[in-house]
Amino acid sequence: MTTNNAEYSQAERDAIYRVIEERRDMRHFSGGTVDNKTLWRLLNAAHHGPSVGYMQPWRFIRITDTNIRKAIHKLVEQEISLTTEALGTRAQECMQLKLEGIMDCAELLVISLADDREKYILGRRTLPEMDLASTACAIENMWLAARAEGLGMGWVSLFNPLALTQLLGMPEGSLPIGIFCLGPVETFYKEPMLEIEGWDKRRNLQELVFENQWNNKTSNNKN
Amino acid sequence: MTTNNAEYSQAERDAIYRVIEERRDMRHFSGGTVDNKTLWRLLNAAHHGPSVGYMQPWRFIRITDTNIRKAIHKLVEQEISLTTEALGTRAQECMQLKLEGIMDCAELLVISLADDREKYILGRRTLPEMDLASTACAIENMWLAARAEGLGMGWVSLFNPLALTQLLGMPEGSLPIGIFCLGPVETFYKEPMLEIEGWDKRRNLQELVFENQWNNKTSNNKN
Repeated sequence: MTTNNAEYSQAERDAIYRVIEERRDMRHFSGGTVDNKTLWRLLNAAHHGPSVGYMQPWRFIRITDTNIRKAIHKLVEQEISLTTEALGTRAQECMQLKLEGIMDCAELLVISLADDREKYILGRRTLPEMDLASTACAIENMWLAARAEGLGMGWVSLFNPLALTQLLGMPEGSLPIGIFCLGPVETFYKEPMLEIEGWDKRRNLQELVFENQWNNKTSNNKN
Repeated sequence: MTTNNAEYSQAERDAIYRVIEERRDMRHFSGGTVDNKTLWRLLNAAHHGPSVGYMQPWRFIRITDTNIRKAIHKLVEQEISLTTEALGTRAQECMQLKLEGIMDCAELLVISLADDREKYILGRRTLPEMDLASTACAIENMWLAARAEGLGMGWVSLFNPLALTQLLGMPEGSLPIGIFCLGPVETFYKEPMLEIEGWDKRRNLQELVFENQWNNKTSNNKN
């Protein structure tokens, strides 16, 4: 089997850990544009994601029509209202959060699962949702690459999937899993925005790692 | 808002694109061990994944008990049989594939969704499966970091989730989404193993990118 084995230098490893740490879910954009070559580098990074049974279930819809962008924004505003209502005691707090940057970002993309997923069985017989998992991995590739290019990206999942499907002429079997805002930003948040805003805190990793059985705290701690 | 804005050098960007391109879903391992500090660096990379509503739904179960490892291997073998049957005309081809490295890898981890997901509404009211998407992004972080550390990682989704839940004492509401083989490898596949084995080919990215409406091929190509 052909190989691919050259070691990574410490500087390369540092760059990879750096971007993992500095990637942010952005909601504040400063307009501008994304160079076409850069956009395709990002899409190509996504396309190098892992996929169950090599099904490559990701589909990208680039929104260049302003009326469609506005219609997407309206769908998201509707869902923000419904979410706020559903949040009950945290509604007031939620209303203070900026949850999307759809009208301000340079590029708007919808990423969807393909409509031909039924025929893929390998690795999905008991876990059909692995198509979503694969696509999310692809999106993380794109997100990290965007951060390294100095571009912000935000994943908006506040929408009615059926309504978005209708708006974009999507076939039965497809499923839009996110609206993605992409583009230049003034500043990247130093910490996740929901942490800065006091919505929640980063958990202690040690609490999330078990050994052999659920809730059995590992004896090998990180120190 | 505090910022996080230093630009990435070309060398840093190159490292990030390199690891995205060279990450592989590994099934061949060469035994050995994973240094404890390295393991925690990888877990910490996962823990810096994005999460919907900052819910951090990922839970890690490190398998150090050989009997549990063997029991997991047995579950996977059972599902490989059932999958092979389900594949019909491709059964013979599937039987030639190496689909897991559970008994050969240095470290075995099960990654699961948390059992307290019900209470998280923000970003999940219409798309509850965003908890899986978040966890998959976290796993991609870990996968990239492992590759940069010279360690192979493989995602095995061939198992009965309920049986695995029972084996590991997992509570109602949790969901194991993968068995992860991690450790030293002799060689990284030059291309995805399923491509080398002729199972499928990488698609033309241009075919997967639409503009404004499904199937409307974009006028902005990558050149």
